[in-house]
Amino acid sequence: MIMRSPQRQPQPLPEDRLRNGGIETPSPRPRIQTHFHSTVSEQKLRRFNILILIFRFASLCFSLAAAIFMFSTSRVSNSPSWYDFDAFRFVAIANAIVALYSLFEVGASVWEISGGTTLFPEVLQVWFDFAHDQVFSYMLVSANSAGTELARSLKDGDTTGTDNNAFSIQSDISIALGFAGFLFLGLSSLLSGFRLASFIVNGSRFHF
Amino acid sequence: MIMRSPQRQPQPLPEDRLRNGGIETPSPRPRIQTHFHSTVSEQKLRRFNILILIFRFASLCFSLAAAIFMFSTSRVSNSPSWYDFDAFRFVAIANAIVALYSLFEVGASVWEISGGTTLFPEVLQVWFDFAHDQVFSYMLVSANSAGTELARSLKDGDTTGTDNNAFSIQSDISIALGFAGFLFLGLSSLLSGFRLASFIVNGSRFHF
Repeated sequence: MIMRSPQRQPQPLPEDRLRNGGIETPSPRPRIQTHFHSTVSEQKLRRFNILILIFRFASLCFSLAAAIFMFSTSRVSNSPSWYDFDAFRFVAIANAIVALYSLFEVGASVWEISGGTTLFPEVLQVWFDFAHDQVFSYMLVSANSAGTELARSLKDGDTTGTDNNAFSIQSDISIALGFAGFLFLGLSSLLSGFRLASFIVNGSRFHF
Repeated sequence: MIMRSPQRQPQPLPEDRLRNGGIETPSPRPRIQTHFHSTVSEQKLRRFNILILIFRFASLCFSLAAAIFMFSTSRVSNSPSWYDFDAFRFVAIANAIVALYSLFEVGASVWEISGGTTLFPEVLQVWFDFAHDQVFSYMLVSANSAGTELARSLKDGDTTGTDNNAFSIQSDISIALGFAGFLFLGLSSLLSGFRLASFIVNGSRFHF
């Protein structure tokens, strides 16, 4: 081992020079890259994926709970329901959409952790994840803000008894859960954005 | 100038070969990177910076206009003003904050395009930009949604005359301008997010 390394230095092999030349050439598309997976980088990749899975799962739980809380306001017959107010409809439906999306993403994430490959082709998957994360997190924060404002103005104009009070508490809880769901969706949006940028820069969704 | 570039080409200097070797070695930290700026990548960098500047400027214009529209509702003495409603206060102040931030960022962007270096140290600048873009764009969409909902419920409960009507039109315009400002802030948030991820991955804020 020690003998060979000084022996090589004076005369570099032609293959080495060829390889150097191949990588050095400033090619128009820098996307192609030799990406060696050491044990360390695979561990980091796994940890990153598990972090995404946790955020997705938390977002699923909170937004599902928020949607259920909002939908169940219509059970009591003589009190107002979510269906009577546009903003509460927005809250209920936005949370339901986010819950469905999060369920799908939890599945995709589990698939990726167990199999090592993405559910869709990689380029589609990273764009799909990030675009939906962005749109849905803005949608969710918008719905929850509108719901908060409606709940406030309902409380200001409220002069009736306990029925409305129960409705208002239930919708408040739903909105609070929706904000928690938004928080985790926003966090997974950060991670999937990093993944997308890493994919654009390196042609691989992870680079450590 | 034209004479010197063909003169160098036929015989590669020993320093060049040394630099090649430096890049090939698989180092444990891939962050350190000699980043050669060709004319193409410098042009792309410039275009990217100018795109950010345009978004920042558009966001400045719209949010400043939104803030002015909302603040100026208090001029007419016998009509309601922005100060009477929490949601409109939120809209006015959020837009004012975004306008100030955008003004600062326009300055920083002009500085960067003209000087080639960032205003703050690079690591601080990319994190500062992205963090503020994220927080402020969520804040702005939240404020505008709450404002929209308040404007809707004010219109539903409205039975008075033209004074309130003028106020409601003015606040509607302010909210619409605020949404336009949010759109451009969101777009610059995407670009600064890409810049940050590129910085994390490569140690340089641009990689093309």
